[in-house]
Amino acid sequence: METTLNKSTKTHQVITPTQLINHWQGHRSLTRRTIEAFPEDAFFNHTIGGMRPFSEMVMELLGIAAPGIKEIATGEMAPLNEHFEHNNKKEKLLELWDKATDEINRYWTQIKPDQFQNTIKIFGQYEGTVQSSIFYFIDNEIHHRGQGYVYLRSLGIEPPAFYER
Amino acid sequence: METTLNKSTKTHQVITPTQLINHWQGHRSLTRRTIEAFPEDAFFNHTIGGMRPFSEMVMELLGIAAPGIKEIATGEMAPLNEHFEHNNKKEKLLELWDKATDEINRYWTQIKPDQFQNTIKIFGQYEGTVQSSIFYFIDNEIHHRGQGYVYLRSLGIEPPAFYER
Repeated sequence: METTLNKSTKTHQVITPTQLINHWQGHRSLTRRTIEAFPEDAFFNHTIGGMRPFSEMVMELLGIAAPGIKEIATGEMAPLNEHFEHNNKKEKLLELWDKATDEINRYWTQIKPDQFQNTIKIFGQYEGTVQSSIFYFIDNEIHHRGQGYVYLRSLGIEPPAFYER
Repeated sequence: METTLNKSTKTHQVITPTQLINHWQGHRSLTRRTIEAFPEDAFFNHTIGGMRPFSEMVMELLGIAAPGIKEIATGEMAPLNEHFEHNNKKEKLLELWDKATDEINRYWTQIKPDQFQNTIKIFGQYEGTVQSSIFYFIDNEIHHRGQGYVYLRSLGIEPPAFYER
């Protein structure tokens, strides 16, 4: 009976909450290695075509990830903050990255399985569902990390393998 | 009773199959507009840091999307093909893009709801589940499109808005 129940529950999910957080944290691990691949000066200053340096994109990701999941888990809303103290030290943003990794994992366990289809106005600004918001967080990270790959290539540096998470 | 059943079914899905295909086709619509934003010559020739022109990334995406979904839906395996006749005409690859859009929608309806957790070796090469394969298709598209955005910016062209699908 329990086997049947588990099978039934499992087989009707496109992706489970646990698979989704592992999927995202796999991406976040790759983004961390992308940050590590940058020389410190280029991380804060290298740009192409008037775009932001990769450090500023990373701060956007930091502003979204843990605060976004905290809002989903707790209902506590805070405005989007994309600025963090770093003193041009990559190590500082890597520390914040790791802190966010732990926070995301902690708040994720508080999200209820029936909550993903709820509507939400994330950061008081963006209307959608919990799932569409989370996929936006992930997709936005992939998008900017892909841009970081071009920055690295333009510096003659090979980025980490995309398929390794 | 039916209301309860619908509610119960709905609320326990992180993302439904219909939401997932709409999510992907939204991304594919944005990628199409990214292709359109390129001047024809730059689409086939512009590169940064020894990377491929955007046209070659787009052919990789064409090689993956419809053939990948066809394999998932039908079980018919074919090797990955990333080369298409285009005679340096953007219009030709846009036609193939639209053909793929229809094919993906058609084969998607043949994927059973309990199939997403099945294991698969896509293109005879990549082991995973149906869901992890589909998310790889989507993530890989977002990744390369983000790179296309840098190419456009380096040409002084504003890419389409990322959040519009």
